[in-house]
Amino acid sequence: MKSAPDWIAHPDTPYLLIDEAKLKSNINYLKQRVESLGSHLRPHLKTLRTLEAAGYLLDSKSAPATVSTLAEAEAYAKAGYTDLLYAVGIAPAKLKRVAALRQQGINLHILLDNITQAQAVVDYAAEFGQDFSVFIEIDSDDHRGGIKPSDSKLLTIAKTLGEHFTGLMTHAGGSYACNTEQGLKNFAKQECDAVRIARNNLETAGIHCAITSVGSTPTAHFGEDFSDISEVRAGVYTTFDLVMKNIGVCDFSHIAMSVVTTVIGHNKEKNWLLTDSGWMALSRDSGTAGQNRDFGYGQVCKIDGSVLDGLCVNSTSQEHGVIELSDAYQLEDFPVGHQLRIMPNHACATAAMHPVYHVLMSDGSHNTWQRITGW
Amino acid sequence: MKSAPDWIAHPDTPYLLIDEAKLKSNINYLKQRVESLGSHLRPHLKTLRTLEAAGYLLDSKSAPATVSTLAEAEAYAKAGYTDLLYAVGIAPAKLKRVAALRQQGINLHILLDNITQAQAVVDYAAEFGQDFSVFIEIDSDDHRGGIKPSDSKLLTIAKTLGEHFTGLMTHAGGSYACNTEQGLKNFAKQECDAVRIARNNLETAGIHCAITSVGSTPTAHFGEDFSDISEVRAGVYTTFDLVMKNIGVCDFSHIAMSVVTTVIGHNKEKNWLLTDSGWMALSRDSGTAGQNRDFGYGQVCKIDGSVLDGLCVNSTSQEHGVIELSDAYQLEDFPVGHQLRIMPNHACATAAMHPVYHVLMSDGSHNTWQRITGW
Repeated sequence: MKSAPDWIAHPDTPYLLIDEAKLKSNINYLKQRVESLGSHLRPHLKTLRTLEAAGYLLDSKSAPATVSTLAEAEAYAKAGYTDLLYAVGIAPAKLKRVAALRQQGINLHILLDNITQAQAVVDYAAEFGQDFSVFIEIDSDDHRGGIKPSDSKLLTIAKTLGEHFTGLMTHAGGSYACNTEQGLKNFAKQECDAVRIARNNLETAGIHCAITSVGSTPTAHFGEDFSDISEVRAGVYTTFDLVMKNIGVCDFSHIAMSVVTTVIGHNKEKNWLLTDSGWMALSRDSGTAGQNRDFGYGQVCKIDGSVLDGLCVNSTSQEHGVIELSDAYQLEDFPVGHQLRIMPNHACATAAMHPVYHVLMSDGSHNTWQRITGW
Repeated sequence: MKSAPDWIAHPDTPYLLIDEAKLKSNINYLKQRVESLGSHLRPHLKTLRTLEAAGYLLDSKSAPATVSTLAEAEAYAKAGYTDLLYAVGIAPAKLKRVAALRQQGINLHILLDNITQAQAVVDYAAEFGQDFSVFIEIDSDDHRGGIKPSDSKLLTIAKTLGEHFTGLMTHAGGSYACNTEQGLKNFAKQECDAVRIARNNLETAGIHCAITSVGSTPTAHFGEDFSDISEVRAGVYTTFDLVMKNIGVCDFSHIAMSVVTTVIGHNKEKNWLLTDSGWMALSRDSGTAGQNRDFGYGQVCKIDGSVLDGLCVNSTSQEHGVIELSDAYQLEDFPVGHQLRIMPNHACATAAMHPVYHVLMSDGSHNTWQRITGW
């Protein structure tokens, strides 16, 4: 563990800190892994939502990327990125914004899983002479949306879309409930198999499927064969978090995000530290509560990033955090004014609370990145 | 229930909607209540964090207000507000920003509960010739910070502060765990009694306490006598939310905040609606889960605001919400493209996810307000 540079103590707390060296390492690892297994990444940019992070995740302005909002698509398009998948089922009223980006030369792909959406796309296309690029969402794990690979509606929707149909997409969000190596391998195969079956059903019916897209951070890290899959999506691997550690995808040492906080008081009777990082800085996400290890609202670390074993943020209000000290720690070790770092349960949720990120560059210097906000 | 004006369907979803008529009614009710009980409000601006909401909450630029971050204090000061209490224990490193505002003529009060903070204040004051205005936090309910009213440290801290000492503040956040009228009345009395005892102990020692400040939304609405209390603070009453409804402070009809969402898909096997409002729009706050009625991630309403009894958002991912229909509802009643409104569990947390709010004005017209972000 390298000691923290002096500047880390200077921004007013709470603030979000990104560790560039870990970020780069996480990004490079998965890129190489997926390419060695015969596919390519389409990184999901939703975790950090900054142009700077996109620069690390994407090799070129034409590299494929995934976004979770049209606001992101518009911001990345403005910065020159041209191949964007908006991976939330399209609301018909949003087609106008999609069309506006496509008219600017952005290959913005959209997603849908029902005939009402497909009909809205072809109606819009006919009325305005607009071409679209549409992925159909396949349900590979029964956890949210999509249609089953062998559902006859798949053919109906693809035929309705006609020339606007591009490919198949699935996201095994259910993999978050796994935490064994074999379970994750199985989930990754299940995800791939779902689009393989769907693709086969389409091709048997004479419909060409140009792209197959699978992925979640756990399955991208445990899949064993992506050779017949066009692309793999993952997002939170950029920084990782405690939920991913509990699943077994990363360890503490890979987590590239933390919130820097200051001790502002003690409750001596209860052996509590009070800090200035509440849920406004950490988020209300308690995603580790149902996992094998509950980190409360985050794992407490020293300011240099080293983990303080057994210490987590036990409760939060808007701008206060409470850390209950175990017998291994003394209040006197954490005087008022002392700074700590908190690793997040869920990096996407914690980053969402911060309009600006502070970045510890690999050479120890300090950058700031602006988050793209809104929808 | 008035029907919703046409414009409500036009902004892209998800978006935050504020009902101005309800906001004004909530604000006026509590102002009159507290004044009729012999005190004054120092509204907490942390729920909406906008200059426009401050305009409704504060009668003049010199009216007392409460903030949860220095970023808010700086923004309100820039807009001309001059009496601001930063109600989070001060980190010594933040005194420089406090001093900068005070040098601009802003009476920014700070809060503390320990001798380390008090010493930092007097040291800074001595070094830079700066005056401060300090509230000491009293612990009235054993739930977070503050010192007990009869703790001898109260006198030590007040004496250390000397001329910088202004008053006593307490916040009975523990009142959120109540849900009976008598329980809330008792909590309000407990909150007032804590500062009464502390004030008496100070005055017996010859220390003048100029201001006593109490409050939380529940206790402000149930207190029966504030006649010897200088001011009462409350924040979330501005819009109310489902947590407050469960406590018994408001009913559905008072809730002035909702998130407008669009149905983007159905899971027919499970009788689920999929919407475009996930935790990014609703927040991860599940604050009603431990209360007498669990609203999941929010109560579902028609677009005109009328409550759909028994329907709530059952689960969320980043940009998806899942609403599980009970037998009383049919998927066909909620076609793809249909819009709904979601009442929030916790208005402060939901508002925090939105950089812009859309406002339904009393005359049916449309405004937008910008949120003050960061720390």
